Parts: sequence; structure tokens; C-alpha cells
Amino acid sequence: MSAPKKVVLAYSGGLDTSIILKWLQTEYGCEVVTFTADLGQGEELDPARKKAELLGIKPENIYIEDVREEFVRDFVFPMFRANALYEGLYLLGTSIARPLISKRLVEIAAETGADAVAHGATGKGNDQVRFELSAYALNPHIKVIAPWREWDLTSRTKLLEFAEANQIPIAKDKRGDAPFSVDANLLHTSSEGKVLENPAEEAPEYVLQRITRPEDAPNEPEFVEITFEKGDAVAINGAAMSPATILTKLNELGGKHGVGILDLVENRFVGMKSRGVYETPGGTILLEAHRGIEQITLDAGAGHLKDSIMPRYAELIYNGFWFSPEREMLQALIDKSQEHVSGTVRVKLYKGSARTVARWSDHSLYSEKHVTFEEDAGAYDQKDAAGFIRLNALRLKLIATRNERVKG
Amino acid sequence: MSAPKKVVLAYSGGLDTSIILKWLQTEYGCEVVTFTADLGQGEELDPARKKAELLGIKPENIYIEDVREEFVRDFVFPMFRANALYEGLYLLGTSIARPLISKRLVEIAAETGADAVAHGATGKGNDQVRFELSAYALNPHIKVIAPWREWDLTSRTKLLEFAEANQIPIAKDKRGDAPFSVDANLLHTSSEGKVLENPAEEAPEYVLQRITRPEDAPNEPEFVEITFEKGDAVAINGAAMSPATILTKLNELGGKHGVGILDLVENRFVGMKSRGVYETPGGTILLEAHRGIEQITLDAGAGHLKDSIMPRYAELIYNGFWFSPEREMLQALIDKSQEHVSGTVRVKLYKGSARTVARWSDHSLYSEKHVTFEEDAGAYDQKDAAGFIRLNALRLKLIATRNERVKG
Amino acid sequence: MSAPKKVVLAYSGGLDTSIILKWLQTEYGCEVVTFTADLGQGEELDPARKKAELLGIKPENIYIEDVREEFVRDFVFPMFRANALYEGLYLLGTSIARPLISKRLVEIAAETGADAVAHGATGKGNDQVRFELSAYALNPHIKVIAPWREWDLTSRTKLLEFAEANQIPIAKDKRGDAPFSVDANLLHTSSEGKVLENPAEEAPEYVLQRITRPEDAPNEPEFVEITFEKGDAVAINGAAMSPATILTKLNELGGKHGVGILDLVENRFVGMKSRGVYETPGGTILLEAHRGIEQITLDAGAGHLKDSIMPRYAELIYNGFWFSPEREMLQALIDKSQEHVSGTVRVKLYKGSARTVARWSDHSLYSEKHVTFEEDAGAYDQKDAAGFIRLNALRLKLIATRNERVKG
Amino acid sequence: MSAPKKVVLAYSGGLDTSIILKWLQTEYGCEVVTFTADLGQGEELDPARKKAELLGIKPENIYIEDVREEFVRDFVFPMFRANALYEGLYLLGTSIARPLISKRLVEIAAETGADAVAHGATGKGNDQVRFELSAYALNPHIKVIAPWREWDLTSRTKLLEFAEANQIPIAKDKRGDAPFSVDANLLHTSSEGKVLENPAEEAPEYVLQRITRPEDAPNEPEFVEITFEKGDAVAINGAAMSPATILTKLNELGGKHGVGILDLVENRFVGMKSRGVYETPGGTILLEAHRGIEQITLDAGAGHLKDSIMPRYAELIYNGFWFSPEREMLQALIDKSQEHVSGTVRVKLYKGSARTVARWSDHSLYSEKHVTFEEDAGAYDQKDAAGFIRLNALRLKLIATRNERVKG
Repeated sequence: MSAPKKVVLAYSGGLDTSIILKWLQTEYGCEVVTFTADLGQGEELDPARKKAELLGIKPENIYIEDVREEFVRDFVFPMFRANALYEGLYLLGTSIARPLISKRLVEIAAETGADAVAHGATGKGNDQVRFELSAYALNPHIKVIAPWREWDLTSRTKLLEFAEANQIPIAKDKRGDAPFSVDANLLHTSSEGKVLENPAEEAPEYVLQRITRPEDAPNEPEFVEITFEKGDAVAINGAAMSPATILTKLNELGGKHGVGILDLVENRFVGMKSRGVYETPGGTILLEAHRGIEQITLDAGAGHLKDSIMPRYAELIYNGFWFSPEREMLQALIDKSQEHVSGTVRVKLYKGSARTVARWSDHSLYSEKHVTFEEDAGAYDQKDAAGFIRLNALRLKLIATRNERVKG
Repeated sequence: MSAPKKVVLAYSGGLDTSIILKWLQTEYGCEVVTFTADLGQGEELDPARKKAELLGIKPENIYIEDVREEFVRDFVFPMFRANALYEGLYLLGTSIARPLISKRLVEIAAETGADAVAHGATGKGNDQVRFELSAYALNPHIKVIAPWREWDLTSRTKLLEFAEANQIPIAKDKRGDAPFSVDANLLHTSSEGKVLENPAEEAPEYVLQRITRPEDAPNEPEFVEITFEKGDAVAINGAAMSPATILTKLNELGGKHGVGILDLVENRFVGMKSRGVYETPGGTILLEAHRGIEQITLDAGAGHLKDSIMPRYAELIYNGFWFSPEREMLQALIDKSQEHVSGTVRVKLYKGSARTVARWSDHSLYSEKHVTFEEDAGAYDQKDAAGFIRLNALRLKLIATRNERVKG
Repeated sequence: MSAPKKVVLAYSGGLDTSIILKWLQTEYGCEVVTFTADLGQGEELDPARKKAELLGIKPENIYIEDVREEFVRDFVFPMFRANALYEGLYLLGTSIARPLISKRLVEIAAETGADAVAHGATGKGNDQVRFELSAYALNPHIKVIAPWREWDLTSRTKLLEFAEANQIPIAKDKRGDAPFSVDANLLHTSSEGKVLENPAEEAPEYVLQRITRPEDAPNEPEFVEITFEKGDAVAINGAAMSPATILTKLNELGGKHGVGILDLVENRFVGMKSRGVYETPGGTILLEAHRGIEQITLDAGAGHLKDSIMPRYAELIYNGFWFSPEREMLQALIDKSQEHVSGTVRVKLYKGSARTVARWSDHSLYSEKHVTFEEDAGAYDQKDAAGFIRLNALRLKLIATRNERVKG
Repeated sequence: MSAPKKVVLAYSGGLDTSIILKWLQTEYGCEVVTFTADLGQGEELDPARKKAELLGIKPENIYIEDVREEFVRDFVFPMFRANALYEGLYLLGTSIARPLISKRLVEIAAETGADAVAHGATGKGNDQVRFELSAYALNPHIKVIAPWREWDLTSRTKLLEFAEANQIPIAKDKRGDAPFSVDANLLHTSSEGKVLENPAEEAPEYVLQRITRPEDAPNEPEFVEITFEKGDAVAINGAAMSPATILTKLNELGGKHGVGILDLVENRFVGMKSRGVYETPGGTILLEAHRGIEQITLDAGAGHLKDSIMPRYAELIYNGFWFSPEREMLQALIDKSQEHVSGTVRVKLYKGSARTVARWSDHSLYSEKHVTFEEDAGAYDQKDAAGFIRLNALRLKLIATRNERVKG
């Protein structure tokens, strides 16, 4: 790979990506464009602009954008249509944000004539894969620079020395090691590393960043009604809201009631296991409610097909294949199923749990007339069940007869 | 089907199966054998014997058995190895008990020379299918009698008249309609029908039979450690116990802490939707713990394959195909995966939730040496990730290049 | 079910459906509308009109239609996009025609104010299921009448007696029993029953209806080039043709060269096995060619996902669930994959086999630059493979290390 | 990776692996052990011994073994139980041989105290992956050396110069470039590269190594009867034979009749497409016959489950994951299904095609009594089908009713 001339860097404004910024300038002598996205991580972006300027980035090369609506509308919501859970439990909060960042990096590269993009993910994790697969899928000619895989700044001490040598300001609380590594966006906050590296040790309570401990949550349950249209949440307690506003509101509710904490040991795509603590307050409520509305609006054929492909869909997103033909094919299947997934679900929030307690819809397939224990006025002829069972049993009887014969 | 001469009836001792008993005698003039099983439903079985005798059943034709250990060891535990959930949420508590009952019915038919078995499930539900598919799979020549699909006792009034006309004692509280229909065993209690038939209405609190309302659960969390060997729970808090004892103990803990309530609208195999409230206190803890131990003992290849076939496995059990080649094939796959699923999980119980907070095992695949943010002493070469990503990206780049070419 | 007042009958003009026609009139005293479709079965339809008139059907109640283009365009081609094979071998020639017939029956019922439809399929086969599921899916209020399941004309003798008693003309060759039962349309001809009922006996050569015995096919191979656009065949040997014309042309070629004979024992949806001989000359070539063009235009991600869902898709069509949410969801997935499945395939036909020998496309993903054994000018860095393999191996090494430790 | 001290090399005796042998000695100064396996590739192994001795390998370090029986019994046959086809067509002839070679390399390393193994596969293909994943899975501490990824002998000229400089004898016909690259074993011969690199060009006839051109095959068909026990072939035309003998015999028959030629463009695991010509004469017959016996001995539940997991199983073998938990889990599922896959199939061989024409078995599930068009003496009640269909249709009717309501 020839040396890059102009690089778009995913820039948080923090110490690590500031070091990367400077390292790109010194290592490659290349022009750097910074991209800082508001994904709902809860940090102000103005300092990122100032810091980029301080590090010599030209104003026209500083991109700072609020992408929260795009994030929820085009990435989070399509994923939630699938009820996606990685390894049965993880709501993919980090995974789903990476493709959006790569998409903007590649677009900004095209706008600014850059030939490369760079990110601050390490060589051990999943994020490098997600960033790079997305970037290559969107621009097969782009160069991707992953400084953590290249440089020799392999210890905290060396990083700080490099920062000092290059006049990069170091916040006081960054001198010492962080107790763990954090990633955050509107969907979730993840914590991993350091004090969490022993999965036999319970995570310390101070790990929690945005969810109230269930023990400290209100003593009274709270009910929330979420309205869906074609699989996407569109209103809370009857009030229509934009996608990002809905997720923000659900985050508040979930955070308040201790909902959405997950302590997980998962399998990374690169082959190792890692342990993380995930906080997904709004997403946990949203999954519960989406399942609740699907219960009355999807039939068994559609629902079971969705369930059967979900693990693969979740794995694709986890592994970084958002921009792949197979993810898009699965999305087409999922989206096709959501045409009638409209209606309202009431969820009860209480000290760490979110449970569907009621659901209704004009699109409901539930038929009280059919299911009732009372007289059903001929809606269903119980005698039909006899033929249904006998034909379903026929092959089993033929097997049993064969086995008798062979063993006899 | 010619008339049965001798019938083994799944007999609870309650009013409905007592009416069935008498109806079989009068309708077919056949000898009746009763089978009453202690599956952990929490009712005494002695009254069933007395009532059977009262209804004229010969002592040698009254079978009363405690099958709790067999139930948990041979049915519940194999199913939990799969982390089986029907439609994402239901732990299959009723479904998994039916094949065992059918198995004993068929075995007792062979012992007693009976040519038929009978059950008290209605023509609208899943249980008729489960009973009958199992019976036919185990004995292709058996006759199955399902009175609810045959007789004309189609209202509560007619049933009570039949009972009175036949000297069947009617408990006072059975005169009026029950507010809903209940099924119970060691794994769960289900409630459905009547007041629950409108899924837009929250279930009344009195529906709960064995789980404390989360609001009424202790204000302090409790921790429980569950030890697994080859996928099955073998000890609680370090004390080895039999399968049924373990599930009983977990039921106590879960029930106390409000764990395991599910309000679900599900798709029945016979084509309609129904709404039920399920209480699965111990099973909910067991699923959480089993997932916890798999997190450190199964690799991604095994775990993801299990996840991908789980919905089909759960569907088979729900639909009544326990005794089918495909369930046995999937079981072989699942059991093969459990060889190293041994170790201990600590679960936190608190006001309705059960969460894994720690897990450890001699069989662990977790490698702190590989995942650490610290120096890893050469366990992992981050540069390997570059090649890994580039080859994973190759097809995506070829697609992107093709698309440029075609659209260009 | 109340008695039908007006019935639309799927009417071939043959003896059996003529008997049904008369039986409907006499049994129910209802008005009958006949629908006769040209699906390419190779029979003239004029006699059907004359016979219907003879049996007293009003001219405005006689529907005769050429649906060959709709059949191939809307049913056969979408199915071939999936490379659908039931049980690994069967091209679903009968299965795919039934939904179209049901669709027209239901539409004609709406046009003519009929409240019922009727078909001539027996109670043992798959076709009854396919007709009826499609009819109910398209009109949940329609009545479906299946005379073979209802009447007492259970022997050939009784049928002929009924025909004679009702002045239904009987062709001379219909007096005796046919040696087997045949179904035909543009996609295939199936033969089953009678002389074919013993799967241990080779089918007699006279079973073949439209394919030359390979031994009698030309001694010289013939090559055909099939061009695809977005997954559908659009031209043969460079000449653009309509869907039905393409299939007709491929049928000629395949039939001439002995291509497309299948002798199969299959599992019917109703639980029994049956043995049939299928002749699918054009379809066999089309499947081979479609696979050929997908080889260069689909990447592994898309292709393997298609392969993995294909068996389920084929099963749905076989079982009669064409008009179901899950078939439509899978179709959306499949169609999404076909955007670039355009190009040309050369197939060699010779004495029973059809083999792809060459394929080319503007949309090709094949990169000689990457794959070449020669110098590749840096297209591919072989060293990347080392990292790729090491990370793919990581979990296997961790497993092996664990197993050493545990066994040690 | 530290330098290897003693290396077990997969050694064919040909020029390329002789160069590797010498390169290992000179590059690493290490002791070399050679392993030459008779996998049925049709070459004598004595010259390999002589050449190894000539290149200075100690006699006790020369391993030459006939592994044909192990190959067929423990690798080919288990795979054929699954009817495995990669990308719908490829019988995995090369893929399935690699794990066996790696297994012996690792075992010989243990016996000889070697710390490394080496192979002659290039950095572009699948074989490097298969060799190395297997090796690492069997011994996580082993070093694997892949000279083609390391050295600078990147052209034919350089290789020949190295050979001459090192006194490696060069067969006359190796001076020039081979027209394509060949791999062979008892299951298949593959050809790729060079003249085959343009998939739009038909492969030249001289590519065929072991199968007669269909045009040159006998003008008379030949019939062969293959007997299976528990899924494995055990006899041909009534004569019991060992696994390797059976495959050898089927190869003769297939080769004679032009059976088993495949021209394929496939997706390699490393991300690129390649085109190959595969000759699998015996394997093609074996697959056809295995499907034939499964048709009468497996029910729909078992068969369809096998079909649904087959693509994943084939992909795993193709990608090199034979020694992985997930392949072993799938194998457990497959093997479980084969308990009754016993019986005999008659296959017709004729000018390129192999077609099942008859099959019989004591374990057959085919029931002429049930399927017959004649009177079935009450084996099957056609009225059962009405209930079967109505319950299968229920959800479709509920959907249609809902859709009317919503659109109305």
C-alpha cells in the first residue's frame, strides 16, 4: 500500500484519537480531515472542533455532524425489526454504529478528495473489522489506516510520551489508566477491559454509566405505551416522535427503572472471547415491545421464519457485514414481514425488568372467536383436529411400524 | 376405528377427567385404566386414587406414579441444553410434559393389554396434538380417544348434568366457572382462557399461582450459584442434588424473587393465536445460568450453530414432535456440544429479574491473555488482523468494483 | 358448511372432471362455472368447451384461458431464481401450477358471484392441499369442494356407471384403467400410480411422454446459449423471447436430447411416500444455466444464503404455501439477490445430460487478476492469508488447549 | 514465530515439494521428515522414497503410507452420509483429503519430536487454510510453514534456478509450464489454472484425466446395484467390499461411462472466485445412490432437516473446518439419521449420466398400501385430509380476513 496523501480520521476529540491525528501527520506527512459524529454518546462536540484546530486541522477539514436521526432511522430501527440478539443476549449497540461512521468517512473522503480513512480501533477487537469491511464495501479503492496495528506506541507510557512530545493536551484524569474502556451512543454504553477482564468476578457497581441500579430504581412500576407502524416505533404514550427522540425517551425511562443491564462473555469475530457490561435501556424496552406487537400481528409462518434467520442476521451485524449482499437480502425478508406490524404495546417497567402486559392493533390476527373456551359459534370445528393430527402422525406411525418390523 | 375395549386414561382426579372416565365407560362399555402422574403440579395424588375407586376402577387398574425425576432428567434437562424458547420467549413448560405422559400411557397399555389411550385435552389446543403424536410414534397400533372432540357435552351446564346423573362428586368451587384454565408441573404453571382472552387487557394479579409479584418480593437481592456438568445442572450453592430437587429449589428461589412471569400471545400449531400467562420461576433462572456457562465453555462455532437450530428445535417440542427423528437428530447435535459445558454460574435474583453476574470453569475457553488491553506477551499478533480483514473484504471489494463498472 | 349455490370448477374436459361437474349439479343442485386453463399441457381446449356445453353449462359460465405466459413469468421464473429443488431433485413442476389455477378459480368466483370452487384432486395427494390453501389464502370466505373426499364413487366401475347414468360421453380408451396417472404443463409431465407403485421395479419405457430416451437421442451434442437478466431467462442463442416461448424452446431442446428424466420416491405433505417419474426437459436446462450464471455474478455471501434457505422455499411450494407470508418473505430475499444475475451461459446437451461449459457477463465478479497462477501485479498479497488463517484458527487452538488442560 | 527445528513436510516427490524440502533445509537449517500418502492419486510412491533419500532425508524420517481405506472410511463416507455439495454442485474431492493429511503430519510430528509441519499449498487457495486449520485444531502448539507465502521464488524461472542450484532432478516434462494444475485422490481429480482461467472459454478436452468423454463412452447403458448399511456403501452388485475398494470400483464404472464431469466457477474461502474442472466418477454415482436409498428409508422430518443443514456442512468442509466443534455437531445429527439407511439401489450409467431407477430395503418406509390409487382397505381415510387442510389454512384465512379489514 502506497502512503496516503489525505486521510479522513474518525475523531472523537479525546486523547487517543488526538494522538492518532498527530501520528498520521508525522508518520505519513499527510493532510488530515477529522470527522466527529454525534451519535448520542452524550459528549459535547465543540471541544473536538477546538482541539482539531489546535492540532493544525484546517477549518474546512473539520466535519462535525449530528447523525442521531440517521443512526436510529436507518440503522437501529431496521435492526430492531429483526429482534436481533447476538448470542441470545446482546443488542448490538456498538456493532450497529460502526457502519454509519464508515459511510460518512468514505463520503467525506469523496467530498474532500482524500484517498484514505483512519480509525482508532485496536487490532484485537471487532470494531476494526466493522470499520474496514464497511469502508471497503463502499469504496473498494479506499485505503484504511489502523494506527493501533501499525505503530509502536504499545504502552500507556509511550502514548503519553508521544502526546507530550507533540503538544497534545492531556486531561488530568487521563494521566492514570482508565479502569475500563467505554463506548457509547444513543443505543447503548459498553464497558470492557481492565477490572472487567475476569469473568468470574462480578462487575463493580461503578461500571454503570447510564442505568440506575435496580435496587435504587423507583419502588413503583411505571407503564409506557409504544406505538408501532410497519415495525418501527412512532409514538410513546400517544405522542408521535422522531426516531431519535423515541429512543432518547425510552433511554430515560429504562435508565430510571434499572432496565437493560447485561453482563456478557461473548465471542469476538477475531476468535477470542471478551467480557463486557452493556447498558441498553431504551433498546431493551424497544425489543420487548416489538416482540409484543409482533405477537398479535405476525402469523406463525412469518414469525418462525424471522426467528430462524435472526441469529445469522445478528452475527452479520456483529461481524461487520452491514454493507453486504447477504445482510441486505435478509433485510428484504425482514422488511417484507413488517407491513402489518402496527399497533400499540403497554410495557411495565420495574426495578430492572421490562415486561409486555397488553397489546392491541387494528392489524391483529388474534381471534377471540376462534380461541375461546366458550361457545365459538362454529368458527372452529374441533373434529378438524382429528384429521390434522392423524396426517401429521402418519409418517411417525410408518416409522414405528418399520422399526417393529426390522427389530422383530 | 372400531370401539376400544380397554382404555388407559390420563387421569388427574379432577372433575373433567372424572367425567371422561365415566363417559368412556358408558359410551364404549370399555374397561378403564387410570394413570395419574406426579409431575410436580403440587397436588396430592391420594384423592385421585379414592375417586377412581369410587368410580369403579379396579385397584390393579389404578396407576399413580411420581415421575418428577424422570421428567426433569429425561425431558426438561435435555431441552434446556438447547436454550429452547418458543417464539423467543416461552420456556415450553406444558409442551415438554406431554410426551412423558403419553409414553407412560402407551407403556401401561402394553402392560395391561389395553388397546386405547385417552386424554382430556380439547380440540382447539396443542395438547391433543402432543399427546397423540407421541402415542402414535410409540405405538402405531394404539387407538387414541379424545372425548372433547367427540362428545356433545359442549357446555358447563351439560357437563355438570352428566356428572350429577352419574354420581360424580362435584367440589363446591367447581360449580361455577373457573376464571381461567390452569396447567401445572414442576417446570411451570400456565393460565389461559376466560379473563385472559383479551390480550389488550392486563392480566389480573390473582392469575399468579406460584410466583410472588415482583413488587412484593424481597428488597434485597439474593445470589445463587449453579454448577453444571455436561450441560446439566448438578449442584446449587455447592450442594449436589438430583435433577428434580434442583428444579424444585430453583422454583423456590425464583418464586420468592418474582422471577419468571411471562404474558404471551403465541401461535398454536392448530392455526390460531392464544394468550397465556406463564410462571416458570426455576426454569427462567436455569436458562440464564445455562447461557452463562455456555458463554465461557462453548466457542463461536458451536454456540452459533446451536443458536441457529434452536428455533426449529423449540417449534418441534411445542408442536408435539418430541418422539420424532428430527427432534432426536437435533438432540444429538445439541448433546454433542455439551461435553465441556461444565462449571459454575452466579446469578443475581432481584424483584423479577435473574441476571448472570459471574461464571468460572475448568473448561473455560476465555483467555485473558489474548483479550487483555495490557501487554499480552505475544499471545496475539495484531497485524494478523490486517490480513484477516483484507481477505474478508475481498469479495465486498470485488462487488463494489463490479457495481461501479456496471453503473459507470 | 352450508351447501354451495354456485361453484367454479377446475375443468379439464376429461372424464373425471366431467363426472365431477355432473355430480356437483346433482348432489348440490348448484350452478356450475367451468374454468379450463392452457398451462401448456399440450391438449386442445376446444373439446372442453363443447363438452361443458353438452353437460348443460351456460356459455357465459365457460371460462377457457391461455395462461402460459402468466404461468412462466409469475410462477415458474420466480421459483427458478431460487434454484428450487424439493428433496434435492424434484423441480416442482406440478406444485407450481396449482396456485395459479386456484387464483383464477377465486377470481372467476368473484366475477360470477360464485360462493364455492371445486377441484378434482384426491384425498391422498398434495394437490388438494395446494388448491385449497391457495383458495383460502386468497378468499377466506370461499367454500372449497373436493368431490373425491366426499362421494361414494370409490371404484372405476362406480365412476363409469355414474357416467353412463348421466349421459357423460366416455372415450373408448377410458373404459379400461389407465396404466398410470399423468399431470402435465409447460414445465413438466409427471406420471405416478399403477405400474409405478413398486419403487423396486424400474419404470417401463412407455412412461416417458415428452422426453426422448437418452439412448435414442442424437449422437452429436448440441450447445445452447441462454441469456439472463436479473435472474430470468430472456433470450436463447441471442434471440429475445417471451417467458413461455423460452420454456417451450428449452423443452424442445431438452426433449430431443433426453434431458430431464427423474425417477423419484418423495415424501408427500400428507405423510406418505409416493413414487413418480418426472419429465422436466426445459426446466432442467434452465436450472443448470441459472446456476451457471449465478456462479460468476453472485458472491459467496449471497450464494450461500440462497442455498441455505432453498430447501425451505422448495418445501413451502411443494406443500402448497405459495400464497403465504413466509414464501413471500423468502421471495423478497431471493429477488433481492438477483439484481446482477445477468449474462449468458452455454450449456451442452447430450444424451440425457445438460452441462454448463462456459459463462460470461458484464456483471461478473470473477477476477482473473486475483486468481491467476501467474504474476498478479499486486492484486492479492499472499501474506494476508497468514493472518486470515491464524485468526480463523484462534478459537480452534483455544479449544485444543482447553482439551489438553482438562484431559491432562 | 521462532525458527523451526524439525519439520514434517507433506511430500509428493514432485518437483515443487522437492524444492520446498531443500528450501526448508537451507532457509531454516532444520531437520526434515517427509510424509507421502497414497490417497489413491494413482502415482507410485517408491520414487518419492528414492528422491527423499537423494535429498538427504534419513530413512527413519521418510514416512510413506497407504491411507486409502482410512480416507474413504473416516472422511469420504461420513461426508457422503450428508449428500454434501458445495455451492449446489461440487463434491468436495480436494477439501475432504486435506484434514487427513494434516492429521498424519501432526501425528508424525509427535512421533518424531518435530515442532513444525509444512505444506506446498499457495497463498491464494483453499488448501493452505484446510491444512493449517486442521493442524492447529489437532495441536495448538505446532508451527505451520507455508513456503509459498514466505519465499521469493515467485516465478517458474526462479524455481528452476533454485532446483538446479540445489541438485534437485527436474523431469523433462517439468521444464515447461504445465497447462494447468492438478490435484488427485481416490475421490476426484481437479484441474485449474492456466488454460482454464477464462470461464467463458470451454475447457479443452485434454483436461479430462480419468473420465471418458461421454461421446466416447459405451453405446449401451450399464446398471450397477449398490448396497448400503447405515448410510455407507458396503457392496456392489451383491459383492461385499471394503470402503476403498467400493470407491475404486465405482470410479472404474463412472469413468468408463463418462459420469462425474463438472465445470464450475466457485467461491474460495479466501474471497476470490476460481474456475475448475472436477472429475468425480465414483462419487457422483455414490451420491445418486445414497439419495436413492434415503428416498425410501428416511421420512420427511429427517430428510428435510438433513437437506436444510447440508449447505452449512459442505461449506465447513470446503473452508477447512473438518476438525471443528460445529462440523462434529452436524456429523452427530447426520449420523443419527442413518440408522435405517440400509438397502440397495440400482443406478443406470449411460454416456455421462447416473440415474437411480429402482431401490428396495427391509427398512423401507414406502407403503404401497397407503399410496395406492386402488382400494386401500382402510389404511388411509381421505376425510382426514379435510381437517388437515382446514387447520393448515386457518392462519392464512385469518391473515386474509385481517387484510380485508385493514384495507376495507
